[in-house]
Amino acid sequence: MITAPHSVSLDGFIADADHRSDRLHAWLRSGGTPSRLNPSFTMPAASAAFFDQGVARCGAVIAGRRTHDVTGAWGGKGPMPGLPLFVLTHRAPDPAPPAEPPYTYVTGGIERAVEQARTAAAGKDVVLMGATVVQQCLRAGLLDELIINLVPIVLGRGVRLLNDLEPVDLELTGVIDAPAVTHLTYRVLK
Amino acid sequence: MITAPHSVSLDGFIADADHRSDRLHAWLRSGGTPSRLNPSFTMPAASAAFFDQGVARCGAVIAGRRTHDVTGAWGGKGPMPGLPLFVLTHRAPDPAPPAEPPYTYVTGGIERAVEQARTAAAGKDVVLMGATVVQQCLRAGLLDELIINLVPIVLGRGVRLLNDLEPVDLELTGVIDAPAVTHLTYRVLK
Repeated sequence: MITAPHSVSLDGFIADADHRSDRLHAWLRSGGTPSRLNPSFTMPAASAAFFDQGVARCGAVIAGRRTHDVTGAWGGKGPMPGLPLFVLTHRAPDPAPPAEPPYTYVTGGIERAVEQARTAAAGKDVVLMGATVVQQCLRAGLLDELIINLVPIVLGRGVRLLNDLEPVDLELTGVIDAPAVTHLTYRVLK
Repeated sequence: MITAPHSVSLDGFIADADHRSDRLHAWLRSGGTPSRLNPSFTMPAASAAFFDQGVARCGAVIAGRRTHDVTGAWGGKGPMPGLPLFVLTHRAPDPAPPAEPPYTYVTGGIERAVEQARTAAAGKDVVLMGATVVQQCLRAGLLDELIINLVPIVLGRGVRLLNDLEPVDLELTGVIDAPAVTHLTYRVLK
Protein backbone atom coordinates (compact mmCIF):
# COMPACT_ATOMS: atom_id res chain seq x y z
CA MET A 1 0.00 0.00 0.00
CA ILE A 2 1.14 3.55 -0.69
CA THR A 3 0.37 5.67 2.37
CA ALA A 4 1.01 9.30 3.28
CA PRO A 5 0.97 10.25 6.98
CA HIS A 6 1.43 13.93 7.86
CA SER A 7 0.84 16.24 10.79
CA VAL A 8 -1.36 19.00 9.43
CA SER A 9 -2.59 22.33 10.84
CA LEU A 10 -6.28 23.24 10.69
CA ASP A 11 -5.50 25.46 7.73
CA GLY A 12 -3.82 22.61 5.86
CA PHE A 13 -0.11 23.23 6.33
CA ILE A 14 2.57 20.58 7.05
CA ALA A 15 5.29 23.17 7.68
CA ASP A 16 5.44 26.89 8.28
CA ALA A 17 6.85 29.44 5.86
CA ASP A 18 10.38 28.64 7.10
CA HIS A 19 9.76 24.92 6.41
CA ARG A 20 9.70 24.21 10.15
CA SER A 21 7.23 21.68 11.51
CA ASP A 22 8.20 21.52 15.21
CA ARG A 23 4.84 22.75 16.45
CA LEU A 24 2.98 20.30 14.23
CA HIS A 25 5.01 17.43 15.67
CA ALA A 26 4.72 18.50 19.31
CA TRP A 27 2.22 15.64 19.85
CA LEU A 28 5.12 13.19 19.49
CA ARG A 29 6.45 14.54 22.79
CA SER A 30 3.19 15.38 24.55
CA GLY A 31 2.65 12.50 26.98
CA GLY A 32 4.05 9.68 29.03
CA THR A 33 3.95 6.63 26.77
CA PRO A 34 7.18 6.01 24.86
CA SER A 35 6.97 4.75 21.31
CA ARG A 36 8.22 1.17 21.22
CA LEU A 37 9.94 1.94 17.95
CA ASN A 38 11.49 5.25 18.94
CA PRO A 39 11.59 5.70 22.74
CA SER A 40 12.67 9.34 22.40
CA PHE A 41 9.04 10.00 21.42
CA THR A 42 6.74 9.95 24.45
CA MET A 43 3.08 10.70 23.95
CA PRO A 44 -0.44 9.81 25.05
CA ALA A 45 -1.04 6.05 24.85
CA ALA A 46 -3.56 6.33 21.99
CA SER A 47 -1.06 8.25 19.85
CA ALA A 48 1.81 5.88 20.71
CA ALA A 49 -0.24 2.85 19.62
CA PHE A 50 -1.26 4.57 16.38
CA PHE A 51 2.29 5.75 15.66
CA ASP A 52 3.88 2.37 16.33
CA GLN A 53 1.32 0.52 14.21
CA GLY A 54 2.05 2.87 11.31
CA VAL A 55 5.81 2.60 11.59
CA ALA A 56 5.68 -1.20 11.87
CA ARG A 57 3.87 -1.40 8.51
CA CYS A 58 6.55 0.61 6.64
CA GLY A 59 9.01 -0.99 4.25
CA ALA A 60 10.33 1.98 2.30
CA VAL A 61 10.06 5.77 2.15
CA ILE A 62 9.72 8.27 -0.68
CA ALA A 63 10.55 11.87 0.19
CA GLY A 64 10.81 15.03 -1.84
CA ARG A 65 14.04 16.84 -2.57
CA ARG A 66 12.97 19.92 -0.62
CA THR A 67 12.49 17.92 2.59
CA HIS A 68 15.82 16.19 1.92
CA ASP A 69 17.63 19.52 1.63
CA VAL A 70 15.82 21.29 4.49
CA THR A 71 16.66 18.51 6.94
CA GLY A 72 20.31 18.25 5.87
CA ALA A 73 19.53 14.85 4.35
CA TRP A 74 18.43 13.62 7.81
CA GLY A 75 22.09 13.36 8.86
CA GLY A 76 22.44 10.31 6.62
CA LYS A 77 19.99 8.25 8.66
CA GLY A 78 16.84 8.90 6.62
CA PRO A 79 13.49 9.99 8.05
CA MET A 80 12.87 6.41 9.21
CA PRO A 81 16.24 4.96 10.27
CA GLY A 82 17.07 1.62 8.68
CA LEU A 83 14.50 1.84 5.88
CA PRO A 84 15.45 2.34 2.25
CA LEU A 85 14.81 5.94 1.17
CA PHE A 86 13.94 7.14 -2.31
CA VAL A 87 14.32 10.85 -2.97
CA LEU A 88 12.27 12.27 -5.84
CA THR A 89 14.33 14.96 -7.56
CA HIS A 90 15.05 16.57 -10.90
CA ARG A 91 18.77 16.08 -10.44
CA ALA A 92 20.68 13.81 -8.05
CA PRO A 93 23.23 15.57 -5.80
CA ASP A 94 26.83 14.92 -6.84
CA PRO A 95 28.38 13.59 -4.76
CA ALA A 96 25.46 12.02 -2.92
CA PRO A 97 25.65 12.61 0.84
CA PRO A 98 26.74 9.52 2.79
CA ALA A 99 23.77 7.60 4.17
CA GLU A 100 23.06 4.18 5.63
CA PRO A 101 21.37 2.48 3.89
CA PRO A 102 22.43 4.64 0.90
CA TYR A 103 19.70 6.90 -0.48
CA THR A 104 18.37 6.33 -3.99
CA TYR A 105 17.79 9.52 -6.00
CA VAL A 106 14.99 9.02 -8.51
CA THR A 107 14.89 11.38 -11.47
CA GLY A 108 12.39 9.37 -13.53
CA GLY A 109 9.23 10.79 -11.91
CA ILE A 110 6.78 9.65 -9.27
CA GLU A 111 5.72 6.45 -11.06
CA ARG A 112 9.33 5.26 -11.18
CA ALA A 113 9.89 6.22 -7.52
CA VAL A 114 6.81 4.26 -6.46
CA GLU A 115 7.88 1.26 -8.53
CA GLN A 116 11.36 1.19 -6.99
CA ALA A 117 10.12 1.82 -3.45
CA ARG A 118 7.45 -0.87 -3.77
CA THR A 119 10.07 -3.41 -4.74
CA ALA A 120 12.31 -2.37 -1.84
CA ALA A 121 9.39 -2.51 0.60
CA ALA A 122 8.90 -6.20 -0.24
CA GLY A 123 5.22 -6.36 0.62
CA LYS A 124 5.23 -3.74 3.36
CA ASP A 125 3.92 -0.18 2.94
CA VAL A 126 5.61 2.61 1.03
CA VAL A 127 5.41 5.86 3.02
CA LEU A 128 5.33 9.25 1.31
CA MET A 129 6.78 12.34 2.97
CA GLY A 130 6.31 15.86 1.68
CA ALA A 131 3.59 17.84 -0.06
CA THR A 132 4.96 17.62 -3.59
CA VAL A 133 5.37 13.85 -3.43
CA VAL A 134 1.85 13.38 -2.06
CA GLN A 135 0.30 15.66 -4.68
CA GLN A 136 2.14 13.98 -7.55
CA CYS A 137 1.12 10.57 -6.26
CA LEU A 138 -2.54 11.60 -5.88
CA ARG A 139 -2.59 13.08 -9.39
CA ALA A 140 -1.09 9.87 -10.78
CA GLY A 141 -3.77 7.80 -9.04
CA LEU A 142 -1.13 5.91 -7.06
CA LEU A 143 -2.00 6.93 -3.51
CA ASP A 144 -3.95 4.34 -1.48
CA GLU A 145 -4.16 5.98 1.94
CA LEU A 146 -3.96 9.45 3.42
CA ILE A 147 -3.32 9.88 7.15
CA ILE A 148 -3.94 13.30 8.63
CA ASN A 149 -2.73 13.92 12.16
CA LEU A 150 -4.85 17.03 12.63
CA VAL A 151 -3.24 19.51 15.02
CA PRO A 152 -5.41 22.25 16.57
CA ILE A 153 -3.40 25.22 15.38
CA VAL A 154 -3.73 27.73 12.57
CA LEU A 155 -0.34 28.53 11.03
CA GLY A 156 -1.44 31.18 8.55
CA ARG A 157 1.10 30.34 5.89
CA GLY A 158 3.51 27.62 4.92
CA VAL A 159 3.61 24.42 2.88
CA ARG A 160 0.15 23.09 2.03
CA LEU A 161 -0.31 19.31 1.97
CA LEU A 162 -3.26 19.31 -0.45
CA ASN A 163 -2.90 22.04 -3.03
CA ASP A 164 -4.04 22.58 -6.58
CA LEU A 165 -5.41 19.06 -7.04
CA GLU A 166 -8.22 17.61 -9.09
CA PRO A 167 -11.29 16.44 -7.13
CA VAL A 168 -10.79 13.15 -5.27
CA ASP A 169 -13.20 11.12 -3.15
CA LEU A 170 -11.97 9.35 -0.04
CA GLU A 171 -13.45 7.13 2.64
CA LEU A 172 -12.77 7.66 6.31
CA THR A 173 -11.49 4.37 7.72
CA GLY A 174 -10.36 5.40 11.19
CA VAL A 175 -10.54 8.18 13.78
CA ILE A 176 -8.43 8.26 16.94
CA ASP A 177 -9.34 11.04 19.33
CA ALA A 178 -6.01 11.55 21.10
CA PRO A 179 -5.40 14.46 23.50
CA ALA A 180 -3.18 16.74 21.39
CA VAL A 181 -4.06 15.59 17.91
CA THR A 182 -6.76 13.75 15.96
CA HIS A 183 -5.52 10.82 13.88
CA LEU A 184 -7.67 10.53 10.75
CA THR A 185 -7.12 7.72 8.24
CA TYR A 186 -8.65 7.87 4.76
CA ARG A 187 -8.70 5.41 1.89
CA VAL A 188 -8.44 7.01 -1.54
CA LEU A 189 -11.33 5.87 -3.75
CA LYS A 190 -10.31 5.17 -7.34
CA MET B 1 -20.53 32.43 22.47
CA ILE B 2 -19.48 33.21 18.91
CA THR B 3 -19.29 29.94 16.99
CA ALA B 4 -18.56 29.06 13.38
CA PRO B 5 -19.74 25.68 12.05
CA HIS B 6 -18.82 24.75 8.48
CA SER B 7 -18.64 21.66 6.33
CA VAL B 8 -15.08 21.58 5.03
CA SER B 9 -13.25 19.45 2.46
CA LEU B 10 -9.91 17.81 3.31
CA ASP B 11 -8.18 20.57 1.38
CA GLY B 12 -9.94 23.27 3.39
CA PHE B 13 -12.75 24.47 1.12
CA ILE B 14 -16.31 25.31 2.18
CA ALA B 15 -17.53 25.74 -1.40
CA ASP B 16 -16.23 24.91 -4.84
CA ALA B 17 -15.07 27.43 -7.42
CA ASP B 18 -18.72 28.02 -8.44
CA HIS B 19 -19.61 28.73 -4.79
CA ARG B 20 -21.55 25.46 -4.60
CA SER B 21 -21.38 23.38 -1.44
CA ASP B 22 -23.86 20.56 -2.19
CA ARG B 23 -21.26 17.80 -1.96
CA LEU B 24 -19.96 19.17 1.34
CA HIS B 25 -23.47 19.11 2.78
CA ALA B 26 -24.40 15.64 1.50
CA TRP B 27 -24.00 14.30 5.08
CA LEU B 28 -27.20 16.20 5.99
CA ARG B 29 -29.08 13.72 3.78
CA SER B 30 -26.95 10.61 4.27
CA GLY B 31 -28.95 8.52 6.76
CA GLY B 32 -32.23 7.63 8.36
CA THR B 33 -32.52 9.90 11.40
CA PRO B 34 -34.44 13.12 10.77
CA SER B 35 -33.26 16.29 12.42
CA ARG B 36 -35.81 17.27 15.06
CA LEU B 37 -35.34 20.88 14.03
CA ASN B 38 -35.45 20.38 10.28
CA PRO B 39 -37.02 17.01 9.34
CA SER B 40 -36.05 17.43 5.69
CA PHE B 41 -32.50 16.60 6.84
CA THR B 42 -32.13 12.88 7.53
CA MET B 43 -28.73 11.59 8.55
CA PRO B 44 -26.93 9.10 10.76
CA ALA B 45 -28.07 9.39 14.39
CA ALA B 46 -24.73 10.73 15.62
CA SER B 47 -24.84 13.58 13.09
CA ALA B 48 -28.50 14.36 13.79
CA ALA B 49 -27.81 14.69 17.53
CA PHE B 50 -24.80 16.92 16.88
CA PHE B 51 -26.68 19.05 14.35
CA ASP B 52 -29.73 19.52 16.56
CA GLN B 53 -27.63 20.42 19.61
CA GLY B 54 -25.85 23.08 17.59
CA VAL B 55 -29.00 24.57 16.11
CA ALA B 56 -30.74 24.65 19.51
CA ARG B 57 -27.93 26.81 20.91
CA CYS B 58 -28.26 29.50 18.19
CA GLY B 59 -29.81 32.87 18.81
CA ALA B 60 -28.61 34.91 15.84
CA VAL B 61 -26.62 34.53 12.63
CA ILE B 62 -23.96 36.63 10.93
CA ALA B 63 -23.37 35.88 7.27
CA GLY B 64 -21.20 37.47 4.60
CA ARG B 65 -22.54 39.40 1.66
CA ARG B 66 -21.18 36.88 -0.84
CA THR B 67 -23.17 34.04 0.73
CA HIS B 68 -26.23 36.31 0.85
CA ASP B 69 -25.97 37.06 -2.85
CA VAL B 70 -25.05 33.53 -3.99
CA THR B 71 -28.07 32.03 -2.22
CA GLY B 72 -30.50 34.66 -3.47
CA ALA B 73 -30.79 36.00 0.09
CA TRP B 74 -32.03 32.54 1.22
CA GLY B 75 -35.43 33.30 -0.31
CA GLY B 76 -36.09 35.75 2.51
CA LYS B 77 -36.04 33.01 5.16
CA GLY B 78 -32.42 33.34 6.26
CA PRO B 79 -29.97 30.45 6.59
CA MET B 80 -31.65 29.49 9.89
CA PRO B 81 -35.37 30.21 9.54
CA GLY B 82 -36.81 32.35 12.33
CA LEU B 83 -33.48 33.62 13.64
CA PRO B 84 -32.37 37.24 13.24
CA LEU B 85 -29.77 37.54 10.49
CA PHE B 86 -27.00 40.12 10.26
CA VAL B 87 -25.31 40.50 6.89
CA LEU B 88 -21.81 41.96 6.92
CA THR B 89 -21.41 44.15 3.84
CA HIS B 90 -19.73 47.27 2.53
CA ARG B 91 -23.03 48.61 1.25
CA ALA B 92 -26.61 47.60 2.08
CA PRO B 93 -28.77 46.59 -0.90
CA ASP B 94 -31.36 49.21 -1.79
CA PRO B 95 -34.11 48.20 -1.60
CA ALA B 96 -33.39 45.40 0.85
CA PRO B 97 -34.95 42.10 -0.23
CA PRO B 98 -38.05 41.19 1.79
CA ALA B 99 -37.26 38.82 4.65
CA GLU B 100 -38.91 37.52 7.79
CA PRO B 101 -37.60 38.48 10.27
CA PRO B 102 -36.11 41.39 8.28
CA TYR B 103 -32.35 41.14 7.67
CA THR B 104 -30.02 43.69 9.22
CA TYR B 105 -27.23 44.89 6.91
CA VAL B 106 -24.18 45.89 8.93
CA THR B 107 -21.70 48.23 7.28
CA GLY B 108 -19.78 49.12 10.43
CA GLY B 109 -17.41 46.13 10.38
CA ILE B 110 -17.23 42.78 12.12
CA GLU B 111 -17.05 44.21 15.67
CA ARG B 112 -20.32 46.05 15.14
CA ALA B 113 -21.96 42.98 13.57
CA VAL B 114 -20.93 40.83 16.54
CA GLU B 115 -22.20 43.45 18.97
CA GLN B 116 -25.61 43.67 17.30
CA ALA B 117 -25.95 39.91 16.84
CA ARG B 118 -24.95 39.25 20.44
CA THR B 119 -27.68 41.55 21.65
CA ALA B 120 -30.24 39.91 19.36
CA ALA B 121 -29.16 36.42 20.47
CA ALA B 122 -30.07 37.32 24.07
CA GLY B 123 -27.68 34.89 25.73
CA LYS B 124 -27.73 32.22 23.05
CA ASP B 125 -24.93 31.63 20.53
CA VAL B 126 -24.12 33.80 17.55
CA VAL B 127 -23.38 31.64 14.51
CA LEU B 128 -21.03 32.78 11.75
CA MET B 129 -21.49 31.67 8.16
CA GLY B 130 -18.97 32.23 5.41
CA ALA B 131 -15.19 32.34 5.08
CA THR B 132 -14.76 36.12 5.15
CA VAL B 133 -16.86 36.54 8.27
CA VAL B 134 -14.97 33.76 10.08
CA GLN B 135 -11.57 35.15 9.08
CA GLN B 136 -12.47 38.69 10.14
CA CYS B 137 -13.80 37.44 13.44
CA LEU B 138 -10.68 35.32 14.11
CA ARG B 139 -8.41 38.27 13.28
CA ALA B 140 -10.40 40.51 15.63
CA GLY B 141 -10.04 37.96 18.44
CA LEU B 142 -13.82 37.58 18.65
CA LEU B 143 -14.27 33.93 17.70
CA ASP B 144 -14.85 31.51 20.59
CA GLU B 145 -15.47 28.23 18.80
CA LEU B 146 -14.70 26.66 15.44
CA ILE B 147 -16.67 23.61 14.29
CA ILE B 148 -15.31 21.69 11.34
CA ASN B 149 -17.55 19.05 9.79
CA LEU B 150 -14.71 17.37 7.91
CA VAL B 151 -15.88 15.74 4.69
CA PRO B 152 -13.66 13.10 3.03
CA ILE B 153 -13.34 14.77 -0.35
CA VAL B 154 -10.69 16.87 -2.05
CA LEU B 155 -12.24 19.69 -4.07
CA GLY B 156 -9.07 21.13 -5.60
CA ARG B 157 -10.23 24.74 -5.65
CA GLY B 158 -12.90 26.96 -4.18
CA VAL B 159 -13.52 29.11 -1.13
CA ARG B 160 -11.06 28.42 1.70
CA LEU B 161 -12.41 28.62 5.25
CA LEU B 162 -9.06 29.43 6.89
CA ASN B 163 -6.95 31.61 4.65
CA ASP B 164 -4.24 34.18 5.13
CA LEU B 165 -4.57 34.30 8.93
CA GLU B 166 -2.14 35.02 11.72
CA PRO B 167 -1.18 32.00 13.87
CA VAL B 168 -3.89 30.91 16.32
CA ASP B 169 -3.90 28.13 18.93
CA LEU B 170 -7.04 26.12 19.55
CA GLU B 171 -8.10 23.29 21.82
CA LEU B 172 -10.04 20.28 20.57
CA THR B 173 -13.15 19.95 22.73
CA GLY B 174 -15.11 17.29 20.86
CA VAL B 175 -14.85 14.65 18.15
CA ILE B 176 -17.83 12.79 16.73
CA ASP B 177 -16.94 9.99 14.36
CA ALA B 178 -20.09 9.88 12.20
CA PRO B 179 -20.32 7.75 9.04
CA ALA B 180 -20.05 10.38 6.31
CA VAL B 181 -18.32 13.20 8.16
CA THR B 182 -16.20 13.87 11.24
CA HIS B 183 -17.55 16.58 13.56
CA LEU B 184 -14.63 18.40 15.18
CA THR B 185 -15.23 21.14 17.75
CA TYR B 186 -12.42 23.51 18.75
CA ARG B 187 -12.20 26.26 21.33
CA VAL B 188 -10.15 29.26 20.23
CA LEU B 189 -7.45 30.03 22.82
CA LYS B 190 -6.96 33.74 23.43
